[in-house]
Amino acid sequence: MEAILITIGDEILIGQIIDTNSAWMGQEMNLRGIKVREVISISDTKTDIIETLHKAFEHADLILMTGGLGPTKDDITKKAIAEYYNVGMTFHPPTYEWILRFFKKLNKQPTNAHREQCFMPNNAVLLENKMGSAPGMWFDEDGKVLISMPGVPYEMKSIMRDEVFPRLNERFISKPIAHRTVLTIGEGESRIASRIENFEASLPGNIKLAYLPNLGKVRLRLTAVGENGQDLEAVLDEKVELLKEYIPELIFGYETETIEEVIGRIFKEKGKTVSTAESCTGGFLAHKITSVPGSSAYFNGAAITYSNELKQKMLNVSADTLQKHGAVSEATVIEMVKGALNTMNSDIAVAISGIAGPDGGTPEKPVGTVWLAIGDKNKTETHKLQLWKDRIKNIEYTSIFALNMMRKFLLNGTIR
Amino acid sequence: MEAILITIGDEILIGQIIDTNSAWMGQEMNLRGIKVREVISISDTKTDIIETLHKAFEHADLILMTGGLGPTKDDITKKAIAEYYNVGMTFHPPTYEWILRFFKKLNKQPTNAHREQCFMPNNAVLLENKMGSAPGMWFDEDGKVLISMPGVPYEMKSIMRDEVFPRLNERFISKPIAHRTVLTIGEGESRIASRIENFEASLPGNIKLAYLPNLGKVRLRLTAVGENGQDLEAVLDEKVELLKEYIPELIFGYETETIEEVIGRIFKEKGKTVSTAESCTGGFLAHKITSVPGSSAYFNGAAITYSNELKQKMLNVSADTLQKHGAVSEATVIEMVKGALNTMNSDIAVAISGIAGPDGGTPEKPVGTVWLAIGDKNKTETHKLQLWKDRIKNIEYTSIFALNMMRKFLLNGTIR
Repeated sequence: MEAILITIGDEILIGQIIDTNSAWMGQEMNLRGIKVREVISISDTKTDIIETLHKAFEHADLILMTGGLGPTKDDITKKAIAEYYNVGMTFHPPTYEWILRFFKKLNKQPTNAHREQCFMPNNAVLLENKMGSAPGMWFDEDGKVLISMPGVPYEMKSIMRDEVFPRLNERFISKPIAHRTVLTIGEGESRIASRIENFEASLPGNIKLAYLPNLGKVRLRLTAVGENGQDLEAVLDEKVELLKEYIPELIFGYETETIEEVIGRIFKEKGKTVSTAESCTGGFLAHKITSVPGSSAYFNGAAITYSNELKQKMLNVSADTLQKHGAVSEATVIEMVKGALNTMNSDIAVAISGIAGPDGGTPEKPVGTVWLAIGDKNKTETHKLQLWKDRIKNIEYTSIFALNMMRKFLLNGTIR
Repeated sequence: MEAILITIGDEILIGQIIDTNSAWMGQEMNLRGIKVREVISISDTKTDIIETLHKAFEHADLILMTGGLGPTKDDITKKAIAEYYNVGMTFHPPTYEWILRFFKKLNKQPTNAHREQCFMPNNAVLLENKMGSAPGMWFDEDGKVLISMPGVPYEMKSIMRDEVFPRLNERFISKPIAHRTVLTIGEGESRIASRIENFEASLPGNIKLAYLPNLGKVRLRLTAVGENGQDLEAVLDEKVELLKEYIPELIFGYETETIEEVIGRIFKEKGKTVSTAESCTGGFLAHKITSVPGSSAYFNGAAITYSNELKQKMLNVSADTLQKHGAVSEATVIEMVKGALNTMNSDIAVAISGIAGPDGGTPEKPVGTVWLAIGDKNKTETHKLQLWKDRIKNIEYTSIFALNMMRKFLLNGTIR
């Protein structure tokens, strides 16, 4: 059972956008035991689309195609598909009604192009798009399946989750395959590898371990292939238990959880609240925390104090401390935590002050110097990071690091 | 003159890494007037590589291939190429000497695998790799060129710059091509399409227009192909000027600029400062503003007031207003702007309060209801959005919308 992913659009060929859809789809197919044989990007011309479909179906039983579905006239994917299958196109009233409702909500009027968009190849099964106006399409002919979706990543993902995965599970049965993903934070790939060397050596031939690192976090994915699905689940559960013994403090969750979701759950369990006092991260930590639905139950708020004036005014950091130690210092972040606890009346507060870069460093405090503090009414602990010259990377890494500080402080009462 | 890019490696097919090499190479080819016809990712198996080479050379005169050149044993690209060309492989002493010197510098010992790596297809012209141990290779047979390079991005780029570009310039002369990207915000793809219908109709056959939408923004890309490069630049400049007449208020920038960079530049020009008062966006607007290097020159800070208590305490919103109108109301965001101007002492303040979802809506204020306000000491303007059920999408769209409010308020003194 092999699949080919096709992305349509000149913007990929000329390098104007990076194709992230394929990576996401590749991961999802892999998790389902469907082998992606090839990823192909082509231009949005009818002949190229038709020719690529012909070639791809020579090798694959499943094609996932993204891009080229939208209201403007450069979108010719649907016409190419209709021509490929040698079918006509028909106006599809429910889709037009959906578009009308969608636009009504936005207080806007659909255009003629939106009406055009509702013509669909006659053999298409339409896949509802909750995030946009163009539905996806499912074709099942001669034992082979073609799925066509819009290229906008959140629209594609929404259609995949709600419409495509259930249909794929029903339509294709493959060799049992099982996965467990163990989520770690706090150590790099190679240090984890050396700590779990004996664990890796203990794995039988039908279980593979993959390291999936991503800025401050490493996912460990165990994949087992076999004849009996139930056995696979049991042996993977065992292996995960064994892995926990090697790196207990690094594991923050499993499967698709995020660190901010895990922390949210712990806050709710403990009935505690939190606030942040951020300088160089500029609100990114608050954003990560509030990206979780229901975070208002434990997140009171944040003071983003970019200027020294605001550190004094909003967080009561003393002018003396700022002058003596500077804004990027242990003394300052300790006072920021105290100020945040007071001003924002939370059980726990996190403070961050650093030099995100690319400019603004000094010989004593080079770009990438970041001080963090976390505390409650009883104690405050601090940590210093020495990061990179890349502004966005520094902001993101620091915020993830702060989330892990919150996790440790909540669970153990200390970040040590 | 058409090229095909091939990336080799299972890690791309299973989505473990995102293929950024192709986007970079696509841009570089495009700048040189070489049309990239297709981007293909395949697994590192000999048969797949050979078959893909055969198919690709049916359509293209130039193939750029990355990945599969390295010291580990799964790298079989070179053997596949030798088999494709039906030539043998020979040990290449200069490459081995280069590897020995390279490892001496790193204070490491090469392994046997590194010696293996020095066997090259007999018809290869070697391309020096200043950044790693595996050289690139150039093949020129039957009027068609194949270039094979390591997949490590900085190694590939170094070989491209030093070895490939000069050879390509010498070997191929291609048709001039030119691009302009016009960045718009504030209207969807189809509405823009209907507003610029006459503009599109006025474009000569050698100029193509593409719509590249992305949550609240649409990029319009004009591509011109012709015989004379200078003429193309001139005619595109003319067309961009013409386009401005159709949608003047929607255009915020050109080429690769971001809305937050453009706003940063305007703030600096006007010598004004800004602060934000955010509820449902949870700091994401502050993050967007501070993602720009040097934003401390105009961004004072933000109050992320998730709870009503903090709206009162940090922004001086009256308990009366909150009780009468609710936290998500025009009256509340107006008071938040006033409070932000006072507390954070900025020239301009933006306030946001809404229901990001997925829960928390009521019949009068469903999920996706968002109130925004922007003001200075003289006046405050408001806007209501009715968005989706998707939390992250609502947060991101609202923040982009707020950035555009800032742009209009700065430039015209009003968001109307």
